[in-house]
Amino acid sequence: MISFQAKNREGKAVKNSIRGNLAVIIMAGGSGTRFWPASRENIPKQFLPICGPRPMLEESFLRVAPLADPDRFFVIINGRHHGLAEQILGKRGVAILDEPHGRNTAPCIGLGCIHVLKTLGNIPVIALPADSFITDEARFRDCLKRGVSLLQQASIVTMGILPTHPETGYGYIEKGTPLNVQEETAFRVRRFTEKPDGETARGFLASGNYLWNAGVFLFKPETMLKEIGVHLPQMRKGLDLIAEAIGTDQYPSVLEKVYRTTAPISIDYGVIEKTGEPIYVIPGDFGWSDVGSWSAVRELRAAERDEAGNLASGKTLLLHTRDASIHSQTNRLIAVFGLKDLLIVDTEDVLLVADINHSQELRRFPEMLKQKGWTQWL
Amino acid sequence: MISFQAKNREGKAVKNSIRGNLAVIIMAGGSGTRFWPASRENIPKQFLPICGPRPMLEESFLRVAPLADPDRFFVIINGRHHGLAEQILGKRGVAILDEPHGRNTAPCIGLGCIHVLKTLGNIPVIALPADSFITDEARFRDCLKRGVSLLQQASIVTMGILPTHPETGYGYIEKGTPLNVQEETAFRVRRFTEKPDGETARGFLASGNYLWNAGVFLFKPETMLKEIGVHLPQMRKGLDLIAEAIGTDQYPSVLEKVYRTTAPISIDYGVIEKTGEPIYVIPGDFGWSDVGSWSAVRELRAAERDEAGNLASGKTLLLHTRDASIHSQTNRLIAVFGLKDLLIVDTEDVLLVADINHSQELRRFPEMLKQKGWTQWL
Repeated sequence: MISFQAKNREGKAVKNSIRGNLAVIIMAGGSGTRFWPASRENIPKQFLPICGPRPMLEESFLRVAPLADPDRFFVIINGRHHGLAEQILGKRGVAILDEPHGRNTAPCIGLGCIHVLKTLGNIPVIALPADSFITDEARFRDCLKRGVSLLQQASIVTMGILPTHPETGYGYIEKGTPLNVQEETAFRVRRFTEKPDGETARGFLASGNYLWNAGVFLFKPETMLKEIGVHLPQMRKGLDLIAEAIGTDQYPSVLEKVYRTTAPISIDYGVIEKTGEPIYVIPGDFGWSDVGSWSAVRELRAAERDEAGNLASGKTLLLHTRDASIHSQTNRLIAVFGLKDLLIVDTEDVLLVADINHSQELRRFPEMLKQKGWTQWL
Repeated sequence: MISFQAKNREGKAVKNSIRGNLAVIIMAGGSGTRFWPASRENIPKQFLPICGPRPMLEESFLRVAPLADPDRFFVIINGRHHGLAEQILGKRGVAILDEPHGRNTAPCIGLGCIHVLKTLGNIPVIALPADSFITDEARFRDCLKRGVSLLQQASIVTMGILPTHPETGYGYIEKGTPLNVQEETAFRVRRFTEKPDGETARGFLASGNYLWNAGVFLFKPETMLKEIGVHLPQMRKGLDLIAEAIGTDQYPSVLEKVYRTTAPISIDYGVIEKTGEPIYVIPGDFGWSDVGSWSAVRELRAAERDEAGNLASGKTLLLHTRDASIHSQTNRLIAVFGLKDLLIVDTEDVLLVADINHSQELRRFPEMLKQKGWTQWL
């Protein structure tokens, strides 16, 4: 293992024994429909500065950048957003891999794996989504580093978030026996569960045995490809075809052909929940959010809220208004009177006004637009 | 009295014995701040289609047009809106009289009187605001015609609206003895009252002796000018100067000079409430509103509301939304989720979102803009 000095994003030197032997897959192919109309088909949320001044993709890169050189990053996007990704990360020297169609996370991770194998060999990989938010980035990196070490004995390692409330919007991971009874820094995974109902979620929280599934996985590419072969054999065949075409003129057409017929499925549901291989989970307490809705953004950016609880960008006049979230992409003046928990998303061609407590349901608007054929606003 | 056939706005012929001997003053100088940001300094509400497809000024003209020839209409506006008024009524042949500054209704009616006197002589005048809404226009005209007849024995006649609720936003008129005990179609006015508090308004309603003051007055110009002379002698002097200048090159400069130093005061407060002359009120039941707020507009346009009570212009997607009022001046898509009694006014450079139950208080926004010096949005 190569060991050398690197700098974290705060500029401090960090000693990092894994840096030379690690690849990172950033999954940035999502559509972000819950953030419509800020997030659009042509610019989904991971390319937008939803949580702060930088696009989420850039934040996600910078957060993990101290762990690996940029040329060991594989950023996987929908090809239609290539220009956006180039604009955000092009100068960083990362590899930007286009998917011709969005097919959820299993093909995405598979594609990353064949590229890592071809370029860097069978080295540890961290795969993570581009649209999460993490408060304590140093602690997050420490967990990842422990995860990489764990790969010496585990096939797959995942991050489990200590739950703070009975959230029904996340999957959960049930802890089994601890790896080390004294330390309890990692546990065998007993099972993954889908999003629970409220009562089940409250039971999970009370038991103390459940963690949120953050969608962060560590593995070696050969292991993951083998598991894809076992549980999704058709997908594995397609990935092999793509792997053979890497570096040839046929690559784009093979990629297109394979993706066209690949069924969309998540890595969790398609592979990881079904594997017989030993999976370990590292409980993490680093302040995590999947940034799944505008109300989540309001919580993340609580420090920016004014004394009335209002979070506002742009020019605003707020009277008798509490706990509003105003996200403006225009230069218009926004005046609000006598409302609470209001969400306003103001874009050039679409205005959204909603009760922020329903922000999980806002994806119904892009669905309706599709049904109506009003595609110019998607 | 000349009697001839004319047509009302529904195209039916009406026999109208007063048509040849009547002038109409339409007061269109208001600022409409409660309708900001639809109503702006450069285009106040009376020039906007707030209540239907036509600008309120045009509606106001058409409503009374069957009573007098167009060249007997005197439309009084703030000079800065001359272009707008020309656009709306220019082709109708009415006289458009500019006020160089807004000074409330007393100087406005005074200015109308001197022009009527100069052009038509001392004939009956109906003075009415340009920004009221009336449901039963034929009944309204019948009341006005009775009012004109009454001027044979009364100095001033006013319209009193049968109150439907204890409104605190209007002035009230207390009825005295009926003109004709059998008919009770007109009453001597006992007194005018300013806007009452809630308890007083409930008392007024319960007594059955009070009517809303609709700001519609009938009089002969010599009578009104005499009364202005008694109660506002300075203003009368100014009006005399203007009257002398009518038809000369000096008119604009005299008008400017007089208006610059004229104190703003309403005809109600400055003259009519103080006069010793006999005033009569004609109770009217023609469906009247002063269109004083967006919530009043919602009531007026109740027939246009959908099954969920939503009144919407423009392209909208409404989910779980009830009793919303959406007034759009743009081509943007407006999506709303999970809100009730919401008011949205969407203009090119300003967006207003408010609880419609507070729509009376929205004039605070233009006030704040003035304080902050953000005049581009006024």
